[in-house]
Amino acid sequence: MSDQPTPRRRPSRDAMARLLRPQRIALVGASDKNLFSRRAFAQHSRLIGARPITLVNPRTSVVHGEFTVPSCRDIEGGIDCAFLLTPQAATVDALRDAAAGGARAAAVLSQGWADEGGLGRAAQAELVTAATELGVTLLGPNHLGFANLWDRIAMCALGLDMPIEPGPFALITQSGAVGSSLVGYAARNDARFSFVVTTGNESMVTVTDVLDYIVEDNNTRAIGIFAETIRDPELFRIAARRAADRGKAIVMLKVGASELAAETAKAHTGALVGDDRVIDAVLRQEGVIRVRSVEDLINTGMLCAHTGPLRAPGVAVMSVSGGACDLIADQGSEAGLPLPAISADTAAALTEVLPPSAHPQNPLDVTGAAATRPEVWRGAFEALAREPEVGLIGAVTSLPTDGEPQRVDTFRAVAEAIEATGVPGAILPQIDQPQSEAVRQTKSDTGIDLVMPGVERFVRAAAGLSRWSAWLHERTTTATAAPALDVTLIGSGPVSEAAARGLLAGAGIDFVPAHLAATREDALAAAADFGGTVVLKMSSPEVAHKTEIGGVELNLTGAEAVGAAYDRLTARAEAAGVALDGVLVSPMRTGGVELLVGVTRDDDWGQVLAIALGGAMVELLDDSALRVLPVSRSDVATAITELRGHQLLTGFRRSKPADLDRVVDTVMRVTAVAESLGDGVEAVEINPLLVDGDRIEALDALITRV
Amino acid sequence: MSDQPTPRRRPSRDAMARLLRPQRIALVGASDKNLFSRRAFAQHSRLIGARPITLVNPRTSVVHGEFTVPSCRDIEGGIDCAFLLTPQAATVDALRDAAAGGARAAAVLSQGWADEGGLGRAAQAELVTAATELGVTLLGPNHLGFANLWDRIAMCALGLDMPIEPGPFALITQSGAVGSSLVGYAARNDARFSFVVTTGNESMVTVTDVLDYIVEDNNTRAIGIFAETIRDPELFRIAARRAADRGKAIVMLKVGASELAAETAKAHTGALVGDDRVIDAVLRQEGVIRVRSVEDLINTGMLCAHTGPLRAPGVAVMSVSGGACDLIADQGSEAGLPLPAISADTAAALTEVLPPSAHPQNPLDVTGAAATRPEVWRGAFEALAREPEVGLIGAVTSLPTDGEPQRVDTFRAVAEAIEATGVPGAILPQIDQPQSEAVRQTKSDTGIDLVMPGVERFVRAAAGLSRWSAWLHERTTTATAAPALDVTLIGSGPVSEAAARGLLAGAGIDFVPAHLAATREDALAAAADFGGTVVLKMSSPEVAHKTEIGGVELNLTGAEAVGAAYDRLTARAEAAGVALDGVLVSPMRTGGVELLVGVTRDDDWGQVLAIALGGAMVELLDDSALRVLPVSRSDVATAITELRGHQLLTGFRRSKPADLDRVVDTVMRVTAVAESLGDGVEAVEINPLLVDGDRIEALDALITRV
Repeated sequence: MSDQPTPRRRPSRDAMARLLRPQRIALVGASDKNLFSRRAFAQHSRLIGARPITLVNPRTSVVHGEFTVPSCRDIEGGIDCAFLLTPQAATVDALRDAAAGGARAAAVLSQGWADEGGLGRAAQAELVTAATELGVTLLGPNHLGFANLWDRIAMCALGLDMPIEPGPFALITQSGAVGSSLVGYAARNDARFSFVVTTGNESMVTVTDVLDYIVEDNNTRAIGIFAETIRDPELFRIAARRAADRGKAIVMLKVGASELAAETAKAHTGALVGDDRVIDAVLRQEGVIRVRSVEDLINTGMLCAHTGPLRAPGVAVMSVSGGACDLIADQGSEAGLPLPAISADTAAALTEVLPPSAHPQNPLDVTGAAATRPEVWRGAFEALAREPEVGLIGAVTSLPTDGEPQRVDTFRAVAEAIEATGVPGAILPQIDQPQSEAVRQTKSDTGIDLVMPGVERFVRAAAGLSRWSAWLHERTTTATAAPALDVTLIGSGPVSEAAARGLLAGAGIDFVPAHLAATREDALAAAADFGGTVVLKMSSPEVAHKTEIGGVELNLTGAEAVGAAYDRLTARAEAAGVALDGVLVSPMRTGGVELLVGVTRDDDWGQVLAIALGGAMVELLDDSALRVLPVSRSDVATAITELRGHQLLTGFRRSKPADLDRVVDTVMRVTAVAESLGDGVEAVEINPLLVDGDRIEALDALITRV
Repeated sequence: MSDQPTPRRRPSRDAMARLLRPQRIALVGASDKNLFSRRAFAQHSRLIGARPITLVNPRTSVVHGEFTVPSCRDIEGGIDCAFLLTPQAATVDALRDAAAGGARAAAVLSQGWADEGGLGRAAQAELVTAATELGVTLLGPNHLGFANLWDRIAMCALGLDMPIEPGPFALITQSGAVGSSLVGYAARNDARFSFVVTTGNESMVTVTDVLDYIVEDNNTRAIGIFAETIRDPELFRIAARRAADRGKAIVMLKVGASELAAETAKAHTGALVGDDRVIDAVLRQEGVIRVRSVEDLINTGMLCAHTGPLRAPGVAVMSVSGGACDLIADQGSEAGLPLPAISADTAAALTEVLPPSAHPQNPLDVTGAAATRPEVWRGAFEALAREPEVGLIGAVTSLPTDGEPQRVDTFRAVAEAIEATGVPGAILPQIDQPQSEAVRQTKSDTGIDLVMPGVERFVRAAAGLSRWSAWLHERTTTATAAPALDVTLIGSGPVSEAAARGLLAGAGIDFVPAHLAATREDALAAAADFGGTVVLKMSSPEVAHKTEIGGVELNLTGAEAVGAAYDRLTARAEAAGVALDGVLVSPMRTGGVELLVGVTRDDDWGQVLAIALGGAMVELLDDSALRVLPVSRSDVATAITELRGHQLLTGFRRSKPADLDRVVDTVMRVTAVAESLGDGVEAVEINPLLVDGDRIEALDALITRV
């Protein structure tokens, strides 16, 4: 899973199809002694109606009880795809042989490539070169292959507990070991896959390529991803948007957050933009559901694949246990799961079906009566389904064990209600529990498709699904194209504050008035013109962070104070060996809420917008929201609501409600400047942007170059 | 689970012993037709060597294949305890009969008591009265009984998958339904119990009583609690301290956070003190590990019971999967699990046992080599165990399935390392997985005691254990007794700010200088004396929240401004119909960090200290830390570090590091005043307390009465 050694060329859709939908497959290096070979063959053998597979071994004529051929060239009719189990050193030869046999795609299992660094990295580069020359698309190396369950292909050495019934959920994982664990967990919880693809070192085919291909698969309704890195970020965003267009959820477990890139730390915005925070922003921006555990990856994917987008993000839950209702309320609130209050109409409908002691509310305690009267489940479900804010209904009940007919009745009642209302539903026990044969049988007997493992996992999965559904309803499909600006006036070298102000003001951003004073007298005259209290600041292309060298003098009243401050500033500049292009004089502002609005460059994702609330407390809490450019006005508006302290802008306590439209407008103008400046700029930043009701005024500006 | 209808009398230890350790038991109302009776008898029958149990039924001579007796009076030798399965209406008669048969304790299963309110509540009161007269200690009603596994007693109708091998973990739950789910989950994950007790309506015996009793049980090393309410808070704290003294962890899932009590909203502190926040503070203060899911309750309890307090709070984890290491790092950081970096010595020791490609770090990737070389596991464990900061080691590996000898070798290697080092260890798979028979067999064959269900659950359980171990090392066993103060000087009616200042200043708290001006001239003179900018505030016992009626004028410079402000204040007071005892004149303070320090009253827990950072952002984020009085200096110091913004006090960015000792000192003085004032006071509050380096100065004070 190391960096790919060669420049990236995206595999075409045809190439991906040849890899993931081959007609004829060879298992090269098949051997009874090889654990992976045994497992791959066993996996293949589990699939009823599997596509033909030929075992290739030049030295042994029978392997796994089947006849082998010595070379791929000996396979009648040729092959499309080869799974190379050969040792690392023999791989290139095996690849040439596979290509000679007709293979245009191959998966390489062995380790010892870029995953070991050094010589391994060079070997991987040679492997890719050979594959490119041969016209072969390469999956791996250092992975465990893939399965395509609808086409009955298991070209993989994943755990033998992988579910083989095809389903609507595709799983893509960089780690083969994690993939093996994931399919076992899926099997215990009756999740079913369309594809399971492991990508390993990603020498050619990345998670992103597989995602981009599988998004178009009609059998796939949701896609789960386990990844340490996202290669080809541009394609990732394109594929994510295509998934959203098709109403398919992407659920992602992204591990291994990297360190802050050193160069982005120069500007304050950079300090807030960690790599993982950028990824988090991208995932949010593109509607990808980010999860934090492997269990949540399967459960959320399983749920999303089952329901598709919800008609409304609200979830209703019912249970025979008051304790479970308490748990759901607490855990739902923690996970941000909307559990809408029910209307008077629904309450009335519930009263008709529930025993008199029950309280019509959400979560709903259907009381012990429901244990013996399945019609209570059905009636309650149907009543809750009439609530327009409810898009999904969960029913918490003990799962069937052998010979418990009343549980079967409960399943049937819920299945009938789902059918009658068209609102998706899930059955779940109170506590995590794998699905026994009795449960599976009951599902199939009653028509229940979805059983989730307990309240906690259901709540978290439903929270992700709910968030995604809401995002899907609200999303704007096009980002506003930024108008091109004339950026020549800041020249090509370092940029002083005065020049940065000029450019940003030219883009239509309101600044606090300022005069660039060349002399002491000039500064005194400007201060007198402004009247009241003023601020003096160094302006120099050589000084990005003025406060660090005492380049700002605040709170100055009267000529004496202004003159003294001017002298201090010029003295400090001289001491620091910094040439000033002047001293900026501005009226002093107080009150309002301070924002930081900045755009920095991320190596992977390009220009990143950061919006943060100002002040020490906010810096300490790292309260910022990020978005990758380009952004729409609605992206910006949403980013602002993500700030933990965003209520300060909407009139919390003594603060005036801000004119948010104008704030968004200012942010859009900053992004327009950044986009016009392009890749040569490291940071464009207004800090602070003073927001005081409808007064939106930039107090300071910074532009730094790469 | 409704409120108990009668005044509470704590059951004695003897009474609890008679209930939970009976020699002879009757199952009253036993019937083949009764599901609970069938289940209770089946549960009893599962226990090998169970204590004798007699079935009582006046109408049927054979039930569950056993002879019955018609009355408890007919049981030879008498009984100690009866489990009443009779219908609600027949319960009091059955209780009298049981008492006549010698029973001094009884458990009542039926519903329809206080749980239904109204008449049920009255019936429960009668039941309690009868039991009290008969000298019978009552468990329930509306519960599922209890099991005492070491004494081989199963007087319960809990799920039949309850583990029957005795163990070190006691479980107490108000909800019988949740209890049934919990024991099933425990069985799947091989957790073993000393006691399982369900308390239901708690008409006599509460969770707290059971806790208090079981804390002393030598077979119990950790106690898990599921509760909606904590009755007898005082005893709860006593029992929790006793548990800590004995090194026994209490793990608690407290659900159903109640609304803010209306009366505590009057003072600002009250607004920060929600009932659940108080409980959270109490649990933290007493070292109770609070969990958020039923699964975490079992897993954390199982882990704590296995390890006891860790020698050090740090945890090391090793795995053959790099993906698992990433997951552990990410999830550990999210859960606050300390994963200490390893020292150079340990790195050197690891290098000797690991393959050259491995990196000695924590979490540790032992590489694929460990899959076939068990000595790598042992060597790595022993090296990590030498790290003094490490108190627990987790080994992530696939669990054995039938016929996988290498996994058995891994288990044995880890078991040997645990034995050799004395550092506790757990084995866990990457992803949640119940324990198969093969896993149990391997544990018993190799001497591994603890297998946890996957990385996520292990990380969360270990984080709780680690936090508790650290707390146990640091805890101070005695709270500082507050000195009694003369509180007569504030009289007995409402308290003005001036009077509150006087009392708090008398307790040694530094206030900003202030003059209580009776006239306009007096105010002008005081302002002139102070010089510079001043503040004017109304002082009146009739005004608790001055800002609400415009009772504060800030930032006044010069006689004209002061005089005008004085006029405005007196005019507003008149308009509001409020009599002033004067206008307070003080110098205006700026800069520093503002704290709120207040004590309010909670109905359950008594006086509660709140410390919060001031300012709108902090109010918005609700950044406060609570402690129940009395508190020690170290309690206060810890509470301060819990504030999300506490770094503002230790010198973040431009703020000066505060003299924390003096801050703690001030807080202690506030608590002393509150304790001296006692129950008649609703709030004692300093807001703000200005903290600016070593200048700690109260700017405003409030005392309100009940």
